[in-house]
Amino acid sequence: MNVLTLFQLNAADTAQIKADPRFNLVQPNDDLSVWGPQIDVILGWNQIGQQIIDGKNRVKFVQTMSAGVDYLPLGQLAVQHILVANTSGIHAEPIAEWVVGAILAFARGLRSDPPLTAANWADQSSLTGSKRPTLWTLPGKTVLIYGTGHIGRRIAQQLQAFGATIWGIDRHGQPLPHFDRVGRDKDSATFAQNADIIINVMPLTDATRDFFDAGFFSGLTNHPLFINVGRGPSVDSAAIAQALTTGLLSGAALDVTDPEPLPADSPLWQAPHLLLTAHISGTVPNLQHEVFKVFWPNLQQLAQKGNLVQNEVDLKRGY
Amino acid sequence: MNVLTLFQLNAADTAQIKADPRFNLVQPNDDLSVWGPQIDVILGWNQIGQQIIDGKNRVKFVQTMSAGVDYLPLGQLAVQHILVANTSGIHAEPIAEWVVGAILAFARGLRSDPPLTAANWADQSSLTGSKRPTLWTLPGKTVLIYGTGHIGRRIAQQLQAFGATIWGIDRHGQPLPHFDRVGRDKDSATFAQNADIIINVMPLTDATRDFFDAGFFSGLTNHPLFINVGRGPSVDSAAIAQALTTGLLSGAALDVTDPEPLPADSPLWQAPHLLLTAHISGTVPNLQHEVFKVFWPNLQQLAQKGNLVQNEVDLKRGY
Repeated sequence: MNVLTLFQLNAADTAQIKADPRFNLVQPNDDLSVWGPQIDVILGWNQIGQQIIDGKNRVKFVQTMSAGVDYLPLGQLAVQHILVANTSGIHAEPIAEWVVGAILAFARGLRSDPPLTAANWADQSSLTGSKRPTLWTLPGKTVLIYGTGHIGRRIAQQLQAFGATIWGIDRHGQPLPHFDRVGRDKDSATFAQNADIIINVMPLTDATRDFFDAGFFSGLTNHPLFINVGRGPSVDSAAIAQALTTGLLSGAALDVTDPEPLPADSPLWQAPHLLLTAHISGTVPNLQHEVFKVFWPNLQQLAQKGNLVQNEVDLKRGY
Repeated sequence: MNVLTLFQLNAADTAQIKADPRFNLVQPNDDLSVWGPQIDVILGWNQIGQQIIDGKNRVKFVQTMSAGVDYLPLGQLAVQHILVANTSGIHAEPIAEWVVGAILAFARGLRSDPPLTAANWADQSSLTGSKRPTLWTLPGKTVLIYGTGHIGRRIAQQLQAFGATIWGIDRHGQPLPHFDRVGRDKDSATFAQNADIIINVMPLTDATRDFFDAGFFSGLTNHPLFINVGRGPSVDSAAIAQALTTGLLSGAALDVTDPEPLPADSPLWQAPHLLLTAHISGTVPNLQHEVFKVFWPNLQQLAQKGNLVQNEVDLKRGY
């Protein structure tokens, strides 16, 4: 099988694949006008992958290095009967730690507005200072998590350990470990209205695009903190900037935005009480090896039996 | 008994004390040239308390609203046989959350150097970008905590839940829950050399003043993150600024500094990879009531039996 590696594995793992005579590694700088029609497997994704499946091809399997696969041509892959696997699971710990850190940054005054200086020190420090931040702690707070997959569950587990109450929303509404309550879409408004912290970890699908819009934010009476580590387009940028300005939200932390990169004229740059990072929350120490641990068993299974052992994406559902 | 309230309790708790005929509340704006010699109990501390015990007085008990009591004239209080109680315990949760949040701010890139802008977004976001922060997660990291009281133990518990290995240093070196190892002073250098994160929660005493000096930092080969939520003077400001500049430390988070407020010419303002807050980590939601919960049983016990039920400070030891 010819394996096109658009994502570079580390040396040891690459050597392990090369040592198996069933597999031949093709690099993106090899002559793809020759190789293109003979590629069986694509590791990673970019415009080269797209060119290959746009032409005559025999691709059977695409392995991504991301959990979300919204950037793939899912319909086209389905028509061509190409299997897709994501790396859902490997980003749970790093993203959950980003979420807990972002919550605590607001709760414990680790980010201050304006930044601390010698001139405003006394005013931020004094119990009666006008700029002293309003601080809080996690025990007794209610956290609502949209999306109860690997990432949502790890967030729930970590925040529950701090003494927070955890509610979830997913398609099933069935009880789950580390969630005190799990509801469905129809429970969304009621749950959201009573939450202190709202977290989006849903994949991007037609159902979740613009899910958090002006209508959603206008129903929040509790001035919650809002966090997005799902996908940017699930949140209306103008609406959340407005909700921060009017105080419907007490704060927000966004690792994903719409669009990315966030242009200089986005209203988000002017929004108060906003913590922004550049889609880095899922950064995994040793990403290359973590991807290999998902990819290698899949590749061997494909060669032997024509299917995958783990992380197969439902192309119709989109995750 | 006349109780001088230098720290203002909330209305409900004040009413409860007033309803007990044994107690009479005196305010700092009452005529203290009259009241001073008749005060039995002081709640809170400032220069008015000092004036009272400097004169002829019958003070029996001082209740602070802080855990640390280094700002009290401990020798003078001991000579006058005045009992002192702190509020050790009520700051454990808020300070531990500040510490976990500060660690995750570094681990997950929640603070970036330089701050995120539209212009550097791509460079911070791209896997190969020159400004993409080096991120890490807590499982497998080794955390060394100096001080294993209420605060140190809660930090240990929270970080252990994230999968970190926890070492402690205290006077006893005996096993404790949530600590994988506990050592004594003599173990300090070896433990510190092998830690990824070093946290100071020790009280300020003669033994802990300037404990973290240039000599301490020069022994660190592991480029740890350093955190101080104990007292500012335990850390030499010039030495830690230097350790950050030279890279002996990969980062630092200080809620307490020497001196406070931190003057504009402190070297800390120029130090890289430094997160500073203005001595706010212990901020407790409902501080007034939390103080009352320690003070009220002590006050009743004092009236009845002449001693205290909880949080009495060893004036010789200093905590």
